[in-house]
Amino acid sequence: MIKDRIKGNYLRKKIISSEEASLLIKDGMIIGTSGFTPSGYPKEIPLALVKRLDESKERISITLITGASVGDEIDGEFAKRGIISKRIPYQTNDCCRNSINNGEISFVDIHLSHLSQYINYGFLGKIDLGIIEAVEISEEGYIIPSTSVGITPTIIEKAEKLIIEINTSQPRELRGIHDIYQTKNPPYREPIPIVKASDRIGENFIPIDLNKVAAIVITDKRDDVRPFASINQNNIKMSGYLIDFLEEEIKRGRIPKELLPFQSGVGSVANAVLGGFKNSNLKSLNFYTEVIQDSMLELIDYDKVNIVSGTAITPSPEGLEKFYKNLDKYRKKIVLRPQEISNNPEIIRRLGVIALNTAIEVDIYGNVNSTHILGRKMMNGIGGSGDFARNSYISIFFTESTARNGNVSSIVPCVSHVDHTEHDVDIIITEEGVADLRGLSPKERALTIIKNCSNKYYKPMLMDYYKTITKINASHTPKILKEVFSWHEKFEKNGTMRI
Amino acid sequence: MIKDRIKGNYLRKKIISSEEASLLIKDGMIIGTSGFTPSGYPKEIPLALVKRLDESKERISITLITGASVGDEIDGEFAKRGIISKRIPYQTNDCCRNSINNGEISFVDIHLSHLSQYINYGFLGKIDLGIIEAVEISEEGYIIPSTSVGITPTIIEKAEKLIIEINTSQPRELRGIHDIYQTKNPPYREPIPIVKASDRIGENFIPIDLNKVAAIVITDKRDDVRPFASINQNNIKMSGYLIDFLEEEIKRGRIPKELLPFQSGVGSVANAVLGGFKNSNLKSLNFYTEVIQDSMLELIDYDKVNIVSGTAITPSPEGLEKFYKNLDKYRKKIVLRPQEISNNPEIIRRLGVIALNTAIEVDIYGNVNSTHILGRKMMNGIGGSGDFARNSYISIFFTESTARNGNVSSIVPCVSHVDHTEHDVDIIITEEGVADLRGLSPKERALTIIKNCSNKYYKPMLMDYYKTITKINASHTPKILKEVFSWHEKFEKNGTMRI
Repeated sequence: MIKDRIKGNYLRKKIISSEEASLLIKDGMIIGTSGFTPSGYPKEIPLALVKRLDESKERISITLITGASVGDEIDGEFAKRGIISKRIPYQTNDCCRNSINNGEISFVDIHLSHLSQYINYGFLGKIDLGIIEAVEISEEGYIIPSTSVGITPTIIEKAEKLIIEINTSQPRELRGIHDIYQTKNPPYREPIPIVKASDRIGENFIPIDLNKVAAIVITDKRDDVRPFASINQNNIKMSGYLIDFLEEEIKRGRIPKELLPFQSGVGSVANAVLGGFKNSNLKSLNFYTEVIQDSMLELIDYDKVNIVSGTAITPSPEGLEKFYKNLDKYRKKIVLRPQEISNNPEIIRRLGVIALNTAIEVDIYGNVNSTHILGRKMMNGIGGSGDFARNSYISIFFTESTARNGNVSSIVPCVSHVDHTEHDVDIIITEEGVADLRGLSPKERALTIIKNCSNKYYKPMLMDYYKTITKINASHTPKILKEVFSWHEKFEKNGTMRI
Repeated sequence: MIKDRIKGNYLRKKIISSEEASLLIKDGMIIGTSGFTPSGYPKEIPLALVKRLDESKERISITLITGASVGDEIDGEFAKRGIISKRIPYQTNDCCRNSINNGEISFVDIHLSHLSQYINYGFLGKIDLGIIEAVEISEEGYIIPSTSVGITPTIIEKAEKLIIEINTSQPRELRGIHDIYQTKNPPYREPIPIVKASDRIGENFIPIDLNKVAAIVITDKRDDVRPFASINQNNIKMSGYLIDFLEEEIKRGRIPKELLPFQSGVGSVANAVLGGFKNSNLKSLNFYTEVIQDSMLELIDYDKVNIVSGTAITPSPEGLEKFYKNLDKYRKKIVLRPQEISNNPEIIRRLGVIALNTAIEVDIYGNVNSTHILGRKMMNGIGGSGDFARNSYISIFFTESTARNGNVSSIVPCVSHVDHTEHDVDIIITEEGVADLRGLSPKERALTIIKNCSNKYYKPMLMDYYKTITKINASHTPKILKEVFSWHEKFEKNGTMRI
């Protein structure tokens, strides 16, 4: 069995225990790992490191660079022990988030499509060690990644040394699902030859310099994927609005009849919104997205899908089970690419991807906050939402009109942090309705958003606010600087934005 | 002479007076014109319309869509008379700006690379009438644009009717300077085959459906280009910092030795910063930019330039004179493309363009405001800065550390409007120094910006602010919501941000 996974005696001699491998991780290192949201990341070696440090009381501190979030074995266990001093570029772990927000971890939040090139340009320093989960490795110098590609090809190319974690829980049949294409650095970069979401333009393996492989470790630990929140009535309403909107756009000739590829953000809301497609008239769907979640597998089950192109497969635990059991069916419909390609502005704009992302809050002028609570506390990171929203055919953002049992309005006078500017947001959808902002000025946007998207409790408050600011100063984007965050301040003081 | 400019009797029969042509402009129309910053826009017909309306007391109101800003003959004279109800996507005219800020004009501020596709997708409605300045038109169905391309090809294709303004002040020798390539709409869009700034991939004319030509008007009015502010000591310092930065990056291997193409924003500061290149060791320069200003012509004079690719030639009045006189020399070094191509994310990222843009204000976390005064008043618009900053190899922003005789700090606790988020700003340069933000967390950025870029008067105030916020709340992006705009409020109250 191991012979099928690690081909060649030369490589098999490199197999060591995870405890031994963990000794290669040293204080001060910049470490890159495989993994994306959280799939296909190394598990055994991180846990061995944690165990060793717990026993030895040794303290080490590293910079950790991954494709996106990784599992609790790294982001959680490392953060708990102060092992991470700097974290790039995205995380979704409670412990890691706490450490970021209490100042223990210095977090760098960048567009996911930018990460590989930042490493290649030398902007983030030299990667001392790469730890890569793989399905297979061979003496010919190829490596088969597992449930994500992310920045793995970049880490494999750029890291000084590599540890490979062969994961036997990841089926060998994943081979062939990946499409590995890497860009050259300017001035030698060429057009990326993708013209359809289904196009395969590279190899199904990542080339690897075997001299850099310092160790190989074997594991059977599964991806620490998480269940989705259950679908609620608001999700169903938003999904319905989206489908109506798309049908109307097709009718008006503003979206072609054959539809365009969709991107769908990570998480429960995005998953739920997409879920509604299965009962719609939409068919022959193409996805050019980041993360493949349950709803996309379900759409494949419903025979609604031509292709899902992404960089990671991250369903719920049940979804993952189903995926493994029916791998033959799903692999025909899935391509996994490096995140530099899955999130590439060139391709997103060329294909005309319809971008579906979720917002933490939206302001009356159409600015979107997708990262910060009360402007200060980091949630997860911008992820790929900027790559898609900016370059999409239509940029759509979803949020329920309120949060925290109605005590927070998701439509506010001014967002407390801007991740997507007024220039990058076309459509806002809440359970109250749809605001189409295309071709509107800030004041026109304000009225449309308040009228169509705000919650009925907050609507009169927002209208009052709007009337006050437009009376006091007639300008392009009216606001009273002293009061822009008064709603947030009220929440901080009283635990509610209500009067 | 007219025979050389308007080829064919069929077309010459369409010549009418500008007064007659102005009758084609009707109330409620969506009108698109040629022109970009402000070059190559129609002059005679707009002035005839204004004269006619002044005499007849008739009132009309239109939506005006152009490539970017146009001259006072349109943006100024139209705004003065309330002719523009909606303006898309950029302007630099005092009257127009006033009308935008007093609510008479509804202004839609969008990324310049998005404009053509928004029109093509039908998002901005049907263009009723296009008014196009040209150097030549022929019965074979081609049109030679003048000193800008902008969205002219899109207007020519999409407008119901066209009026052509043949401008004899624009030399016929401009023919051949343009490179007209238009993208198809998704799902039929293909890779744009530019791999070097100098690549020519299209025709030197715009194809035109002659049936749509409702009238031809002749004029000799010149582009209303404006002088630049004189270069000051701070500009020279910033230019020096940029050159040092570039040389250091080359030395460290983070920018290739052969350099990469530059983009340079519009206006006096950008022009001045670039001016410093002529006395540097940098040579064989390539530009992949929007607007060709004086400093680029000068760099051609100094034999420092391989190619300048842009969408408009907008030098000062003296620069324009020089350009016309030495057209043979300059045209070999210049390519003018549609703004959809000059500003295209695909090409900017592929070529690795180094983006040089100017900011109105920058905050301690690296967010940039490039459009709004005190968060409310529109200056010009985002223009192409977002197209370039987001997709560049390195995104550099310039601002003097203070404005209004030192009464305004350009480095503030929080920008009053966000056009470029923390995710899109790599380097900030003021006359005080350089802040390199790559790979830094918000708090690390704050210390770097305050230390390296802020004015010595405001530095202790910013440090005090930073100490206060980090003491009161340790979070990813510390801030006190009530106080984030206290500096701006102080300025509104006292006319200064000083204590």
